[in-house]
Amino acid sequence: MISPLLTDLYQLTMAYGYWKLNMHDREAVFHLIFRKNPFQGNYALACGLEQAIDFIKNWHFAADDLHYLQGLKTLTGQPLFTTDFIDYLSQLRFTGDVDAIPEGTLVFPHEPLLRIKGPLLQGQLIESTLLNVINFQTLIATKASRVCRAAKGDPVLEFGMRRAQGPDGALSASRAAYIGGCEATSNVLAGKLYDIPVRGTHAHSWVTAFQDEKTAFAAYAEVMPHNCVLLVDTYDTQEGVKHAIEIGKILREKGGELRGIRLDSGDLAELSIKARQLLDEAGFTQTRIIASNSLDEYVIEELKQQGAKISTWGVGTNLATAYDHPALDGVYKLSALRDLEGNWEYKLKLSEQAIKISNPGIHQIRRFFRNGQLIADVMYDLELGIVEKPSVVLLDESRVSVKLDEYDSFVDLLEPVFRQGELIYRHESIHAIRERAIQQVMQFLNTHKTAAYLLGLEKSLYELKQQLISEVSVANDVS
Amino acid sequence: MISPLLTDLYQLTMAYGYWKLNMHDREAVFHLIFRKNPFQGNYALACGLEQAIDFIKNWHFAADDLHYLQGLKTLTGQPLFTTDFIDYLSQLRFTGDVDAIPEGTLVFPHEPLLRIKGPLLQGQLIESTLLNVINFQTLIATKASRVCRAAKGDPVLEFGMRRAQGPDGALSASRAAYIGGCEATSNVLAGKLYDIPVRGTHAHSWVTAFQDEKTAFAAYAEVMPHNCVLLVDTYDTQEGVKHAIEIGKILREKGGELRGIRLDSGDLAELSIKARQLLDEAGFTQTRIIASNSLDEYVIEELKQQGAKISTWGVGTNLATAYDHPALDGVYKLSALRDLEGNWEYKLKLSEQAIKISNPGIHQIRRFFRNGQLIADVMYDLELGIVEKPSVVLLDESRVSVKLDEYDSFVDLLEPVFRQGELIYRHESIHAIRERAIQQVMQFLNTHKTAAYLLGLEKSLYELKQQLISEVSVANDVS
Repeated sequence: MISPLLTDLYQLTMAYGYWKLNMHDREAVFHLIFRKNPFQGNYALACGLEQAIDFIKNWHFAADDLHYLQGLKTLTGQPLFTTDFIDYLSQLRFTGDVDAIPEGTLVFPHEPLLRIKGPLLQGQLIESTLLNVINFQTLIATKASRVCRAAKGDPVLEFGMRRAQGPDGALSASRAAYIGGCEATSNVLAGKLYDIPVRGTHAHSWVTAFQDEKTAFAAYAEVMPHNCVLLVDTYDTQEGVKHAIEIGKILREKGGELRGIRLDSGDLAELSIKARQLLDEAGFTQTRIIASNSLDEYVIEELKQQGAKISTWGVGTNLATAYDHPALDGVYKLSALRDLEGNWEYKLKLSEQAIKISNPGIHQIRRFFRNGQLIADVMYDLELGIVEKPSVVLLDESRVSVKLDEYDSFVDLLEPVFRQGELIYRHESIHAIRERAIQQVMQFLNTHKTAAYLLGLEKSLYELKQQLISEVSVANDVS
Repeated sequence: MISPLLTDLYQLTMAYGYWKLNMHDREAVFHLIFRKNPFQGNYALACGLEQAIDFIKNWHFAADDLHYLQGLKTLTGQPLFTTDFIDYLSQLRFTGDVDAIPEGTLVFPHEPLLRIKGPLLQGQLIESTLLNVINFQTLIATKASRVCRAAKGDPVLEFGMRRAQGPDGALSASRAAYIGGCEATSNVLAGKLYDIPVRGTHAHSWVTAFQDEKTAFAAYAEVMPHNCVLLVDTYDTQEGVKHAIEIGKILREKGGELRGIRLDSGDLAELSIKARQLLDEAGFTQTRIIASNSLDEYVIEELKQQGAKISTWGVGTNLATAYDHPALDGVYKLSALRDLEGNWEYKLKLSEQAIKISNPGIHQIRRFFRNGQLIADVMYDLELGIVEKPSVVLLDESRVSVKLDEYDSFVDLLEPVFRQGELIYRHESIHAIRERAIQQVMQFLNTHKTAAYLLGLEKSLYELKQQLISEVSVANDVS
């Protein structure tokens, strides 16, 4: 369970401010979006909602949390928060609405993965944790999807724990990697907590614990006749393969089978080709060749091009830390606030870069399909609504306006999760989420391998945004 | 508390194998080392020991862990572990010795940060978690040290939670960043758990929650007269600074003070220079300028060169994820195992790359000083010992042999932490650890800014290693 103190202090100082000014219960809308596809890719996979739900459901300041907050001081030594405010926090539970895009759904920049509608103070206090959870899992699910695509149907195993970013960096990564398409993880706790298949056989230390490699292999085959994958590169990979074959023959005589060998260093293309040949010649045609060692989607693709005979890919650090792009740039923006009369005031933040100006309103994403293919995502405002054949202003530099009139069906992506603080979302199995992810990626890639996918603001929302930009600029003396 | 299941499955299959072969209690020595300084730097800061200690101290399989393990199957459907083994695990506690380099100590590639000496099975089972914890915190402490060096004494605040790699990615990063030299964190839970100063004022959403920026600033100043730092870039930074000054004047009249402004976008050099001028002209010479927005050591250095007038640096994602090098390459190697007669057999793993061949033995690191400066680190074997004026073979391509005869003093870096399972290490305050880190980095940089620091194997250990390489090569048919 994630503590409500896993937040940035400024969320609490703002909450205190809202409370002192009696604004804390004004209804507000926040959206959690990311701005750029990670890995210079053209999609992402939403992930982390289950942990976000757990967090919100259990969101409550415990006595020792309150005690800690009570002791905080300003730089000049005054108590940061009054006792009244601490008392107020002690009663706090989440009472708002949350809508979210289900995990494993294909998502694009600027689309709200979460929409929070509820008391301003509450929406503010849960921001940092939601960003933390959703940013990281979405990042890793997306990375895993890329790695699995490169493996072209070969199983990918996630092995990243030892160099992941802390215990939860490992756990969350294992979960998200499975959702993104990995077949299993080496992380036993992730297996237990998330119902993910776990895999593993032995390390170099097993081999060095014995007098020599052949003795080590024989010992492993003896104790694990049904789970026998031998790591062959402790001393010399070629010799290791030969030793594995020798032991594999003995194992067969005893009714076992050499399930695989693992290569963990050297030129994996060359070594795997030689190993395959040796194994096949010795009659071990079903023995799998598992490869690991700094793999990622780029290395796998290259190895495939070099004709590597690798059947299973063990991917560790580069997957579990998203090494080449280790953070998703998710943000969480206030986009509407009810005024004292109860009317919505739409909100935005300006930026010198047009694409960083936040979108005002209360958003939903409508995804359109034609002939079973995704054709467009349209962000619209729930108050302004959307017509049957909407005009859409594309969310790119072009700002071209497109009319969506030829489609077969659509779906609204954000689904109700909490209503007035009550959890109403059905629990989804991780396997169903993974299936969705794999299918949606396949469907998307079938049509949008290179061409850009249409992504835009419904026209009346776009126009409202432009008007608001002018108003805000005047009100704040923007030159 | 970290679960003992936070491990790779192969640790458990190997443990099962050792247990079945009655090797599980043979005394073994493992060392945890990293191979390359992160960030193309020339040092690292050891970090994470406190969490490693907690893990080992509480290491125990709970009933539901055992239940999960009992349910695991091989690919062909047999139970992976026997009930006897599960019973054995249920009794298991750590009973070995651990020695470690204290947190906040300057460390170099190939030096054991931890040495585990105890039953083979236990040393194996705790490997993955120790790597996870030590790798990540050492990485972040080192990154923080680099960032703080670039800031040349200006305070650095760690703001990385929202894009950190999961809840613990954030927490561990906040701890390690403080140890590496940061002054405070925005992460409230890290503040509570680790006694780190916390900081924060308000975000853009505070500003957009009001009619206009000036109203928002006035409101913040009203509720936080003693903690008033205003974020000025929601609409237009220049105008934002002017609004902050207006509000600062009113605040002063009421006995408060504008402590700072924060810049979060745009050309931070130019904007900070202009802001400083505006603030100074208005008499706010003590008002600090805090900057954030994708900062790291390189950007900070550049901004300093451009004459930026920034007093405090808020560093987020790039620090908390070590963005440009998001994993330390730590490994954990078996280096000695007692044979059935109770004699030590020294162990190593070969590699095509000489530098990746593991070091056999039971290691200690002796650090030598001259005139208050660090001059060399020498790895020696506890059985072989070290003479007063040791000869050392450098751990680089040169393999030059050096005699260390001119030094004033030395210290052995690895300190006893557990003895026969009992924790004997004194708890260190995080503040003392941080002081050590800051002092050691300063001491090191004073002499070794560019020149390589001497780092080597004591000569008899080196020779023993060479002999063992030959023996192992012969025994395993290495060509």
